[in-house]
Amino acid sequence: MLYVSRDFQSEDSQIKIGPPGNETIIGGDNFTVMAGPCAIEDEKTLLDTAFEIKKTGCDFLRGGAFKPRSSPYSFQGLGVEGLKILQKAGSATGLKTITEVMEPENVETVAKYADMLQVGSRNMQNFSLLKEIGRSNKPVLLKRGISATIEEWLMAAEYILAEGNFNIVFCERGIRTFETYTRNTLDLSAVPIIKLESHLPIIVDPSHGTGNKNLIPSMSSASLAAGADGLMLEVHPHPERALSDGKQSLTINEFNQLLSKLNNLSSGICQESKIRCLN
Amino acid sequence: MLYVSRDFQSEDSQIKIGPPGNETIIGGDNFTVMAGPCAIEDEKTLLDTAFEIKKTGCDFLRGGAFKPRSSPYSFQGLGVEGLKILQKAGSATGLKTITEVMEPENVETVAKYADMLQVGSRNMQNFSLLKEIGRSNKPVLLKRGISATIEEWLMAAEYILAEGNFNIVFCERGIRTFETYTRNTLDLSAVPIIKLESHLPIIVDPSHGTGNKNLIPSMSSASLAAGADGLMLEVHPHPERALSDGKQSLTINEFNQLLSKLNNLSSGICQESKIRCLN
Amino acid sequence: MLYVSRDFQSEDSQIKIGPPGNETIIGGDNFTVMAGPCAIEDEKTLLDTAFEIKKTGCDFLRGGAFKPRSSPYSFQGLGVEGLKILQKAGSATGLKTITEVMEPENVETVAKYADMLQVGSRNMQNFSLLKEIGRSNKPVLLKRGISATIEEWLMAAEYILAEGNFNIVFCERGIRTFETYTRNTLDLSAVPIIKLESHLPIIVDPSHGTGNKNLIPSMSSASLAAGADGLMLEVHPHPERALSDGKQSLTINEFNQLLSKLNNLSSGICQESKIRCLN
Amino acid sequence: MLYVSRDFQSEDSQIKIGPPGNETIIGGDNFTVMAGPCAIEDEKTLLDTAFEIKKTGCDFLRGGAFKPRSSPYSFQGLGVEGLKILQKAGSATGLKTITEVMEPENVETVAKYADMLQVGSRNMQNFSLLKEIGRSNKPVLLKRGISATIEEWLMAAEYILAEGNFNIVFCERGIRTFETYTRNTLDLSAVPIIKLESHLPIIVDPSHGTGNKNLIPSMSSASLAAGADGLMLEVHPHPERALSDGKQSLTINEFNQLLSKLNNLSSGICQESKIRCLN
Repeated sequence: MLYVSRDFQSEDSQIKIGPPGNETIIGGDNFTVMAGPCAIEDEKTLLDTAFEIKKTGCDFLRGGAFKPRSSPYSFQGLGVEGLKILQKAGSATGLKTITEVMEPENVETVAKYADMLQVGSRNMQNFSLLKEIGRSNKPVLLKRGISATIEEWLMAAEYILAEGNFNIVFCERGIRTFETYTRNTLDLSAVPIIKLESHLPIIVDPSHGTGNKNLIPSMSSASLAAGADGLMLEVHPHPERALSDGKQSLTINEFNQLLSKLNNLSSGICQESKIRCLN
Repeated sequence: MLYVSRDFQSEDSQIKIGPPGNETIIGGDNFTVMAGPCAIEDEKTLLDTAFEIKKTGCDFLRGGAFKPRSSPYSFQGLGVEGLKILQKAGSATGLKTITEVMEPENVETVAKYADMLQVGSRNMQNFSLLKEIGRSNKPVLLKRGISATIEEWLMAAEYILAEGNFNIVFCERGIRTFETYTRNTLDLSAVPIIKLESHLPIIVDPSHGTGNKNLIPSMSSASLAAGADGLMLEVHPHPERALSDGKQSLTINEFNQLLSKLNNLSSGICQESKIRCLN
Repeated sequence: MLYVSRDFQSEDSQIKIGPPGNETIIGGDNFTVMAGPCAIEDEKTLLDTAFEIKKTGCDFLRGGAFKPRSSPYSFQGLGVEGLKILQKAGSATGLKTITEVMEPENVETVAKYADMLQVGSRNMQNFSLLKEIGRSNKPVLLKRGISATIEEWLMAAEYILAEGNFNIVFCERGIRTFETYTRNTLDLSAVPIIKLESHLPIIVDPSHGTGNKNLIPSMSSASLAAGADGLMLEVHPHPERALSDGKQSLTINEFNQLLSKLNNLSSGICQESKIRCLN
Repeated sequence: MLYVSRDFQSEDSQIKIGPPGNETIIGGDNFTVMAGPCAIEDEKTLLDTAFEIKKTGCDFLRGGAFKPRSSPYSFQGLGVEGLKILQKAGSATGLKTITEVMEPENVETVAKYADMLQVGSRNMQNFSLLKEIGRSNKPVLLKRGISATIEEWLMAAEYILAEGNFNIVFCERGIRTFETYTRNTLDLSAVPIIKLESHLPIIVDPSHGTGNKNLIPSMSSASLAAGADGLMLEVHPHPERALSDGKQSLTINEFNQLLSKLNNLSSGICQESKIRCLN
């Protein structure tokens, strides 16, 4: 029997993020929205963005310090400098922080600066990385590989679980298909499937899943209605100036409108089942 | 400029189904649920199912008389006999009826018995069929081909529009990908994309889109939240005895529970926008 | 047991094309090359092309009279007028002719003018068309659907066989994948798979399979080496002026060079197995 | 201008493998066959296999010591113990050796024991690994990711080249598509595309590309005819007892028959162009 399976644990897992006494919970009745820029670009921009996100009531800041890029000549992120900026923005605002880790030897460093690790889609089957994360006890967001079957994704989580780390949240972020209108095809059926097969929470990243900001409000609403435990969204004060992925980033204003729409939708879900509300 | 495009017509089209004075409208503020068995099997079963569907408040009955099947040795449907049963069930209950037409020379016959034609995914680029439907004025549900890009789908509609028939509703029903957990991958991003690109309504078929009844409630909710104008669902009084697609059919009881869930969800959407309610 | 299967018939089928006493055989020791323009454009161009092809030693002329096109506003072919031109070119040169048929009611007409029918990839599961072709006894080239599994393709052939027509040749022409460098992904593994599963011949269309004339020589050689019974190639005297698919058409000169290369390659195969030679 | 491109270097690169004075060359007029078991299981089996391979005239032994497996509970390889066995088999037979490296910190170790490194498909975008290999000067076989576009694959090579290591050979090993008859879809069009776009050699792995030993002879012949610089093949003395991938492994006897077929085919190619012969 696999640790990841519903057979191993029938009730939903709730994953605690942050220091004891000041934790945010993913799963259960919560709907968690993680927002921020694709890449951390400089201290002022990230802090401004973080304070704006804090005002919306969300409690999670995302931002990349190590950026996996198809070309070696694209902007690769600020590295440890970026981690320090992220930590500063977290401390200044009280937001929890999440950022990507790309290699086993960096797990300890990233875990020191951020509240939650992220495994990107290109590394879903980087087994050395998964094992190293498994040996830490840090919460981790495990993104689905761009062409990973759901079974392979569950087994990737099992690599982490087998080493003793049970603090895993899945993240559906789109799969590669023949369709070219969208950057990827967001596979929302992954949400109820993960709920059937596993006790671990799952959130959705419609920013990468569609690559088109015009589609994000609809797909965010659909994710909530499908039963997801949250969203990861790219939010940037000036998307047109972003060093990476500007086309799929929401402005602060658009982000606020989306949250308002999700709150209304949530009330329609809560009237029925009393679960999963935005705070 | 294409007839199918938002550039040609900026406001949403509303498609009227049924005889003058007794019409059902797809699009606008309506959320239309089409329900019924995959295949029409016999008169008693279809009439029983139709009366149960009528009680739920839905006003659309689906059922296949001509069935496209991968194998020539699988059940191919009752043909014209099935059309007559469908018409009878429609008359007895007041439900509007929809059924698939597979060849140009049958368009006139099917149009005589049913209120709405359906073009199945295998025939999305059967251009002779599209043109013949274009020359009739019958409303038509145009399912997306199993590996059709959204651009090809829009162009398939244009074949019908170019012949003068503007009564078209799109239906997303899943695309073929590498994932084998589901029968197809339901591409819900097609909903906001069609809304951006076209003035025509779009509904979703999560029964074929997932092939697994356990996923249908979540994906139906997600479709509503994504902005779809309705659903097509396989409902069968005894799925375990169905001649085709029993694994993805809801029982009447499960169908009622799903409608109740969708009504609650709809209230969360309507509080915001005053549109798109279940009646 | 399916008619299409090796279990039904263990020895390879050989399909005879053309009038009794003047037949060309596909399958067995033959490697058949069908060449010609994507669409028949006018009588002079087709006749000129046909005479050039005749000179190369090939004995098959292809050309589309009814063209399936994604857009209703693209050139749709010359229709019956095109069939007459094709027949004329066949008579004048002694080449066998092949052209696509798109709807059941046209089967008889196309069969009157051409030596072999072609079912295009969009119509691989147009079951009405398959049945009508099954009721004729005309040889037919059955192209693989753009996203058809090999099992579905075999079953499509079974629709024709079940009506009594055993004169079927398969044609692999590329499948739809995520890769965008090529128009489609030519799946050459289909060649040995069809040979394992069926007694019917299979040829390959690298013109549509790659969409790029620079790749055609390599993929033609690979098709021969993989065990295919022939090729279908787009050849046009002036590709830059072609009304359709010019980018993937070979000039007469390039076509001659390719045939020479294939003849050499064939000798390497024949030294071993004494089968499958170019004339 | 990218280092990987034909624009940077117009003539074909030839990659030297092994110690100075005793090198094997990949590229140019050579057709290199790498053979051996999927995983190194024990010393006796590998040495027996190595001597059999040596007798065929091939000069390359493959075998996995670190095995990437979807499940953490599958056999993960013998690790450094396996590397030592591989080195021993190489020394005893004079065969060059190749084996997979999965993490940056192991590059130096693997480079000490083997003549050539392999980057597996799951790690094609493990950028930390690519950079570390780039900083070594060891020859490397870069397998295509299971859903990598050719452009992404070229850029992955550029990561290695940008660090100064130009000893790269590409390996096409099948992509993930909807087809389930084969394990993957071998994309042979990648061979002429890489030849057009890059100066680096490319070989093909039909064992993983098809997952079915019955298809390997045809697809190996097709690879040679398409212009590949070699093959990587799974060969095992007792496939039915293999710990991994037995279904796609050739026996020594089957391997010998295939080499004989390839030699004949090669003569058909050489008569034309005087290049690319088996020894």
